Amino acid sequence: MRAEELIRKKRDAGALTRDEIFFLIEQHTRGGIPDSQMAAWLMAVCCRGMTAEETAHLTEAMLRSGKALELSGLSGAKVDKHSTGGVGDKTSLVIAPVAAAAGLRVPMISGRGLGHTGGTLDKLESIPGFKVRLSLEEFRRAVAEVGCALVGQTEEIAPADRKMYALRDVTGTVESVPLITASILSKKLAEGIDALVLDVKVGSGAFMKRREEARELAESLRAVAARRGVRVAALLTDMDQPLGRAVGNSLEVAEAIETLRGGGPDDFRQLCRELTAWMLVLGGAAAKLDEGARRFDELIRSGAAAEKFRQIVARQGGDAKVVEDSGRLPQAKREKVFPSPGAGYLSRMDAERIGRAAMALGAGRAKVEDTIDATVGLILHKKVGARLERGEPLATLHTNDEERVRQAEALLTGAFTLAEAPLAPRPLIIETLA
Amino acid sequence: MRAEELIRKKRDAGALTRDEIFFLIEQHTRGGIPDSQMAAWLMAVCCRGMTAEETAHLTEAMLRSGKALELSGLSGAKVDKHSTGGVGDKTSLVIAPVAAAAGLRVPMISGRGLGHTGGTLDKLESIPGFKVRLSLEEFRRAVAEVGCALVGQTEEIAPADRKMYALRDVTGTVESVPLITASILSKKLAEGIDALVLDVKVGSGAFMKRREEARELAESLRAVAARRGVRVAALLTDMDQPLGRAVGNSLEVAEAIETLRGGGPDDFRQLCRELTAWMLVLGGAAAKLDEGARRFDELIRSGAAAEKFRQIVARQGGDAKVVEDSGRLPQAKREKVFPSPGAGYLSRMDAERIGRAAMALGAGRAKVEDTIDATVGLILHKKVGARLERGEPLATLHTNDEERVRQAEALLTGAFTLAEAPLAPRPLIIETLA
Repeated sequence: MRAEELIRKKRDAGALTRDEIFFLIEQHTRGGIPDSQMAAWLMAVCCRGMTAEETAHLTEAMLRSGKALELSGLSGAKVDKHSTGGVGDKTSLVIAPVAAAAGLRVPMISGRGLGHTGGTLDKLESIPGFKVRLSLEEFRRAVAEVGCALVGQTEEIAPADRKMYALRDVTGTVESVPLITASILSKKLAEGIDALVLDVKVGSGAFMKRREEARELAESLRAVAARRGVRVAALLTDMDQPLGRAVGNSLEVAEAIETLRGGGPDDFRQLCRELTAWMLVLGGAAAKLDEGARRFDELIRSGAAAEKFRQIVARQGGDAKVVEDSGRLPQAKREKVFPSPGAGYLSRMDAERIGRAAMALGAGRAKVEDTIDATVGLILHKKVGARLERGEPLATLHTNDEERVRQAEALLTGAFTLAEAPLAPRPLIIETLA
Repeated sequence: MRAEELIRKKRDAGALTRDEIFFLIEQHTRGGIPDSQMAAWLMAVCCRGMTAEETAHLTEAMLRSGKALELSGLSGAKVDKHSTGGVGDKTSLVIAPVAAAAGLRVPMISGRGLGHTGGTLDKLESIPGFKVRLSLEEFRRAVAEVGCALVGQTEEIAPADRKMYALRDVTGTVESVPLITASILSKKLAEGIDALVLDVKVGSGAFMKRREEARELAESLRAVAARRGVRVAALLTDMDQPLGRAVGNSLEVAEAIETLRGGGPDDFRQLCRELTAWMLVLGGAAAKLDEGARRFDELIRSGAAAEKFRQIVARQGGDAKVVEDSGRLPQAKREKVFPSPGAGYLSRMDAERIGRAAMALGAGRAKVEDTIDATVGLILHKKVGARLERGEPLATLHTNDEERVRQAEALLTGAFTLAEAPLAPRPLIIETLA
């Protein structure tokens, strides 16, 4: 088998066999096929697509390039959630402990933020002492003991994906439904899960700007997961405005803790409730969605959810007292109000610009190797639909650097649109595929 | 400007600007853009195509990556011919000296053989002492003194093409009309020519198997050359059976010399005559095509063509006596007849299989780094349309190795198709675009 022939086959819109796909992935991972050939093949996939069968083979080849978590000895359904990423999306920090408190096993592998979107690992690391780098065996033990662990992709999981993603990032081959599907699922299937809830974000702050693209990805993810015997529900949810009010790492952790303790912004709590309910239904811990939603409310009210989060933090070396006192989280030196430029009804918030403003403050990375400041970010005081007067506080910037504030303010100017009359808000949950 | 953005632009079927194309080519040539990014961009070009304007910019960027021949001080029109390559195609060895004998300047840069097709440089190097590696300045002086030089691509000409072609060869990105156009013309335009005759081969032994593909390439070449002010005629010619009778390096030189001296196979002489006539017309040395064809006949008959070839060989260090005595060319040790497998009319010869048989004997390269044997090859005794009896000699193999003979015979078996009745032969010149 020669790489050139397989590249040409895909270039000419042919479908590759299982053996051919395994050959490409195995050889590239071990260095037998150079990046240049892989890049040509990846671009051919971007242009010509892949069948569902090819995508399943690719996912399996990437999964098998590494090890998988062995959880079959543990009681309880193993269920995870995956989000395609957005601005202010700290749902994992709430739903993982709630689902674990309900008796599910939640072995959650998360990523870091890049560009205008945040990453769960960066948020967790703003908790003093919290370790996200666990070996596969440490990961397994944490799930066995606490019911949940929140970790980064270990060296042992899907090395093919790590190598391929680094290449895709610089060769314009990220935006491909089959490649995204295989990248997500190769890592998620390595968790040894029985079910998966997908939160596919749609809107200006999301990777997928249009509903049709988001649905295509959701359907591809469902089809491939189903072939592997994993139960899947996919929710298309709004990311045209940020989720909740906090954007920035320690600020988001504080908002997640507030929510676990029964408070938190309405939209954020509603989404956590819906995603958790689906996890409970797919995991067999609730018969119906409304029963799952009621379990969510009970576990919050009883304090079981907050207690589970405390256990997770403690198990992973973090300062568990943050759960009672989020003032223990690191804080930025200064706050600065961003006022409303006029009067009217807030009709639009550009989530991408707001995410880029938080990045400008130091909360995110432009490049993978950039370092971030856990303390900075912004709190939105209003959401779409709210009435505003000129000069009224729209947001508060948390910052350590005056020059960065100016960059963030420049980005925020133009991120908010005011209208004369209130608009019907976009639904938070746009569509559910299950 | 960032390479990733330009890759994405082409992936999404956008047209790149002149500056963008120059940035990609300049940076790749100097190592500022890695092969992996270039490979992704090349595949995007294969899948999405390029406008005529983009192709012209690409050609210019590749041309400008190196130096060009400065011939403007020389009298006479500068005219060249380019063939897309085939089996038994030794036309350059005849038409270059004839056109130079007619007063044109012929600064011809040729290539080496790869796969089943031969290369002019390999053929020339079978003449003892013949040097094809000339510096740009040596090349210029040879054209000034003799009117013609037959050389390889120097280090100074289109380095971007050399680097890009090596990458295309392993990344499945050879087969693209705009990339082929830019690769051919960046080298041809570096010759400083006023006019160019293109011989675009069509058929089993050619790069383009179908007439539509060949016409598309011919039109692309014409459009880009015209933008650069170069007059072009493009001939689509048959490569379903080998051209002439000799396939293999020194065997083909002998056939070219025979033709320069007034003999040679009919089809080969006819094609040389037509291509030379077009060179003379485009170069202003003949008013009409039939006048150009008559000049060809006269220059052969008078001995001026053979004398010009003798001068070229001598000027480039070769043994000029081969022109009077082709027995001085290196010879294989043994000859072996390949007999006709049956009786009937020869209805088809598979040029690609015959080319591969010659390659198996050692006349060609499977990989760029392979070495070749100048002496081996085969002589075809019959052409399509001929009547054959069983056991009658179809071809004679010239060889130095019994094992290679067996491989060649296995390839030749099945390369010839016999029919009960004679078929109307395919026309040699299929179409002319001028």
